Order: sequence, then structure tokens, then C-alpha cells
Amino acid sequence: MKIKYELIKNDKDSKARLGKLHTNYGVYDTPMFMPVGTLANVKTLTPEELHAMNSAVILSNTYHLWLRPGEDVVDHAGGLHKFMNYDGPILTDSGGFQVFSLAKPKDISEEGVSFKSHLDGRKLFLTPELSIQIQNKLDSDIAMSFDECIPYPASYEYAKASTDRTLRWARRGKEVFNNERQSLFGIVQGGEYQDLREYSAKETVKIGFDGYSIGGTSVGEDKVTMYKMIDDGIRYLPLDKPRYLMGVGDPIDILEGVIRGIDMFDCVLPTRIARHGNAFTKYGKMNIKNNKYKEDFTPIEEGCDCYTCKNFSKAYVRHLIVSNEMLGGRLLSIHNIRFLIREMEEIREAIKNDNLLNYKEEFIKNYTSNKHREK
Amino acid sequence: MKIKYELIKNDKDSKARLGKLHTNYGVYDTPMFMPVGTLANVKTLTPEELHAMNSAVILSNTYHLWLRPGEDVVDHAGGLHKFMNYDGPILTDSGGFQVFSLAKPKDISEEGVSFKSHLDGRKLFLTPELSIQIQNKLDSDIAMSFDECIPYPASYEYAKASTDRTLRWARRGKEVFNNERQSLFGIVQGGEYQDLREYSAKETVKIGFDGYSIGGTSVGEDKVTMYKMIDDGIRYLPLDKPRYLMGVGDPIDILEGVIRGIDMFDCVLPTRIARHGNAFTKYGKMNIKNNKYKEDFTPIEEGCDCYTCKNFSKAYVRHLIVSNEMLGGRLLSIHNIRFLIREMEEIREAIKNDNLLNYKEEFIKNYTSNKHREK
Repeated sequence: MKIKYELIKNDKDSKARLGKLHTNYGVYDTPMFMPVGTLANVKTLTPEELHAMNSAVILSNTYHLWLRPGEDVVDHAGGLHKFMNYDGPILTDSGGFQVFSLAKPKDISEEGVSFKSHLDGRKLFLTPELSIQIQNKLDSDIAMSFDECIPYPASYEYAKASTDRTLRWARRGKEVFNNERQSLFGIVQGGEYQDLREYSAKETVKIGFDGYSIGGTSVGEDKVTMYKMIDDGIRYLPLDKPRYLMGVGDPIDILEGVIRGIDMFDCVLPTRIARHGNAFTKYGKMNIKNNKYKEDFTPIEEGCDCYTCKNFSKAYVRHLIVSNEMLGGRLLSIHNIRFLIREMEEIREAIKNDNLLNYKEEFIKNYTSNKHREK
Repeated sequence: MKIKYELIKNDKDSKARLGKLHTNYGVYDTPMFMPVGTLANVKTLTPEELHAMNSAVILSNTYHLWLRPGEDVVDHAGGLHKFMNYDGPILTDSGGFQVFSLAKPKDISEEGVSFKSHLDGRKLFLTPELSIQIQNKLDSDIAMSFDECIPYPASYEYAKASTDRTLRWARRGKEVFNNERQSLFGIVQGGEYQDLREYSAKETVKIGFDGYSIGGTSVGEDKVTMYKMIDDGIRYLPLDKPRYLMGVGDPIDILEGVIRGIDMFDCVLPTRIARHGNAFTKYGKMNIKNNKYKEDFTPIEEGCDCYTCKNFSKAYVRHLIVSNEMLGGRLLSIHNIRFLIREMEEIREAIKNDNLLNYKEEFIKNYTSNKHREK
């Protein structure tokens, strides 16, 4: 079935909203954070571990799965859920973001994008139709339109031309879309320009999608610009569809997104920083490799309900990370994903209790206190 | 408490024996396989996963823990069990084997062994006393005497001198040993020489230990020699103490060890081959990277009761391994360890049913059938 967004409550002090996402795999509360499982697995983790963290939707990357193992392998397995044995909703991106980090502007034509494989350098060509066809075969629950992520900064002319092309690509993708149980999201672009964001949002809504993504942020712009880019697009999106801010997972950015009306977030941050020995905590990021944790036998975060904090000490996780033991990255990934999922739980609770702005202020005060900064 | 070995049954057709090991953490059946957790973790796995595989004793490496995180850190954590949160028995080796793979013969003196750290090249000096003191602090359940693992081949003169020194080292270690709840094993050496093996076994037993290890195998000798080295030492060991064949985990070698009277085995093989994409199966080793498994959506081994086989396909595990996703090595580690632990369960059942030699014949016939060999 197509996903349905059910609005439960509008926040009284902001554009934040409490909702429910009805999916093929059950009903999940929004706002939500979606862990990233690029290659059909959230790095180092099993489906059971994701469920134990109260994870809902996870994200997988079309570009990466196209290359390995190939969409036909996934299709023959019975789709991504069966392939990776995940019985929860899966969202796939369009491949656009990965492609544009590999392609040069001259490689982008009306037809699609030519670029070189990051694995073996062979030439590849991705089109809006192919992106959708791959995603149809992957059989995720939510697919994304193929778009261009506009660089920052970009000239008005470039941004305008790109935004128009992304709209044409969105129509072409929708045209060939063919999967009854999959939903399709359109993506708002427009670069840093207010009128282009308005134009992109309105025209994307005219095409008509099951949900809407905010694209083009987290590409080097400052925070003020980023938050304005969200505002400039989201105000024209329909209230009865979910809104997804792509690639944003910084704990503070999530809060800023929520108060602007975002329902869904994803980011590789929690697993990527984990593999480098960093942990999210209430009081900011903690580098577990720091020598001061060598004999610290308390959990990474007192009171944290994650598997890692309930069972292991900073000293132990530090030892594993310092010794390049993979279990270290796994334990920190569990902690970091659970941290963001719990932040979402707290955010939803705060909206329920008409307390979101207080929660936000307190959260940011603690998070930016730099309690863990190295001396 | 010191471990106690309880003999349950002698096999009617071989020297195999069914027994129970009474430990600080419960009673476990022998013969048993012990997974290796070099750096205070069985690579990629949690304690819960080890329990789920029906793992009993695990092994950790004194040399590695001495270097990282250091025995004092483990001591201050409350010992190895608390440090790594493992509530099962732990055996530590003496560091001897690791030292000798790093040291040259001229670096071995009566006092101890000088060698360079494999991490940063700094000079280290390990003595029998220090090895025991480190293990006392690690607070494992079973500690090993510091020994020299004699190279193969070695001259009679070298083997004799080394065996005598290992005996003196065993006495020195026992002298300083100081941990009420820890047991100490002596190690039988003697190289490839029957009379030296007899001498080493008898003299080690005279010193008196809670259990006895067979050392010096798996250092390049052929299988016939290896099995003879076991026979030549084990016949002089007391029947009321456990016998441990160090570093042996090949599925067939385990069977050959069991029929010679071995109770305990350990090896890095199941986790090491896992990280390179290899799986133990009834019909021999399987290289999951083989292209023929690309769309094989059946489990690694039909009927296997491990988490991996119950939840994932060859095609999925292959995809993870080929894509360098750490979950792949984790899933194969689970399968491979469970394979060896199940082999031990079947061996014990076969002894119970007076069927061990038939079981062995059938097992070897299947395992050497090379069903999975690449075409």
C-alpha cells in the first residue's frame, strides 16, 4: 500500500507536528530518525538490534545497491526486505546525491548523468527512469525521485535551470513508476534562492507525490542558510503528506528541522562517527579514545537505555576502539543510533506536552556545553 | 574456586572421554571448543551472541591484553569478566606462543624472553613470573604456565634444553601464582621427540597443576606427527584432570584430538576464516565469495541452527563480504563458531551412544568430499 500520513497534533509554539506514518510494516510515530543502511545493512548491525533500538524506517542507497549486488539480485531475492531480512519499512534514495558527488557539471544532461563508478572507474549513466526502475525492483516502501542536488553556492541561473530540470526528471520518473506497494516522494530543490524554493515546492506538489523531501541542504552552507532553505520550501507543502529532510542527522539540526515542520530525518552520522570512536551524549560529542576514559568504568552516558550503556563501560569501548576491534564500532553505533531515536521520542513527548521550545532550549544548552571537550 | 574435572564416561573404542568441567561460572560438558577472544572480545561478537551459540569457556590472550589495555586497567575494572561483561569461564594463555612468533632464539634466556612489541617495536621482556602475575590480575578462571613453543623441526639438543627450561619456568610460575579463584595449567612440550614428550609430561605432572595442556603442535608439522605428539604426551597425564590441546580448531583435528583423550580445544580459525569469507560446513569449507552464490537464496548450511543460517541467505552474506561490510564477517563468525560448538555436541552425543568412531568416519567422509570446491 502507499504510505499515509496521519496528523495527530500541531505544536502550539512552532510548525512542529506530531503524526503517524502508516506503512506496509505497521504504523510509526513522527517526527522520526531513520538510520542509514547503505548496502542493505546498517553498518555492523542486525535487524534485531535495530528493532531493539526502536528503529522504524531505515534508509538504503539505490546507487550502492545498483552497483552491488545489483537490483536484479535483490529482485530475485524477493525484494530488499527479504534480501536483508528486515521486517520494517525501508526508504531508498534516488542515487542523485551519490552521483553528484562523483559527476562534474558537464556530465549532467537533460537525459541523465554520466559518471564513473567509485568502485572500478567504469562509466555509468543514470537517468530518472532508471533510478525509479531500480527502486521499483528493490521494492522499498518509499522511493525518491531522481534529482540534482545543487551545489552551494550556485548562481541563480544555474539553480533555476537545475530546478527546472529536476522538475522534468520528477515527471519522467513518476511516468515510469510501477510498484503498487511502493510510495514515491518528490524532492524540493531551488538552491539557496527563496523564490526558486517556492517555485520548486509548488511545481513538485502539482506533479503530486505521496510525500515530499527537502533537498539541497548540508552541502556546505551555514546553519542560518540551511534553516532558511527548509522554511522557504516547506511552507508550500501539503499538510496531509510527510516531509523528509534528506541527509540531516546532527542532533541540533534535527530539532531545528522539527520546529520547521519536518517529519523524517536520515543521516550516516551516528554510524560514521561511531567507527571513528565518537559518541553522541546529552552534553555533546564524546571522543572515547581520549586518555581520560582509560579507567572510566561508567557507561558512555549515565541513564542511557541502549544495549551498550547497559552492559559496557567507557574504558571497555575505548579499549576496543583503540585496538581496532570491530565490536567497538558496533557498540558505539548502537549507542549513537539509539541516542537519535530517543531524541525523537523526547521531541514527540515534548510536542504532546506543549513543551517543545523549552525542551529545545534545554537540549541545546546541554549539548553545546562541551563537557567532554579534551583538556 | 579451582576448576574440577569430573569424568562421566570413557569411550569404549578410543581414548575419548565424556566429562564435566566445574568452574566459577557453572558446569560445562567436555570435550569442548573454546572460541578465542584475543583482545577481551571474540572478534565482532557480544557475550549474548556467544551464549546463544552455547559457548562455554572462551580464551583471551595475555600478551595482547598486557599491551592493550594493560593488566592494571583490567584489574581496576574488577577483572576480565567485568571488563568485557562475560559471565562465563575465561581461559588465558601465557603469552608464550605470541612471544615466540616475535622473538628470535637468541632472545630467549633462562630469565625470560626479550622481543619487540608488534604494535610499536618497543623492547619488552616477559618472564614466567610476569606472565603469571599478569594473568593473576586479569583474573581469568584458568591460567597457563609460561612455556616455549619449540619450533618444528628442532634438533634433539635444542628440544631437550628448551623442555627443561619450560619445566623450570613452570616451577617459577607456580611459585609466584597467587589467585584463589584461578586455576593453573602446566604445558607439555618436548618437540617431536617421543622420549622428551614422555619426560615433559611426567615432570610437569610432578610439579602438579589443575589441568594439563599439550603444546608445540600446529607449528608446521604434518598431521601424522601432530597426532603422534599428542599421543606421546597425553598417556602420562592424570585421568582426573582436564587436557587441553592448544591452538587446534580444524574440524578434523578436533576429532583426532578427542579420540586421543583431549577435553578442550581453542582456535582463531572460525573467526579468522570468517573475516575472509569462508564458512565451515558439513561438506567442507565454503568460500562465500564464489560467484555461484550470487543468487543462492538458501542458508549457508541447510538445517544449521545458528542465527545466521536461520535468518540470512548465502547471497546476502556474500554481498556483505564482497562489499567489505563488517556485518558479513560477524554473521560468518557466528556460523563458524556455532559449527565447531555443534560438532562438539555431536561428538559428546556419539560418545554417549558408543558411536564415536562411526561418527568420526562419517564426518571426515563428508567434510573431505569437497562439495563446495570451485568449478
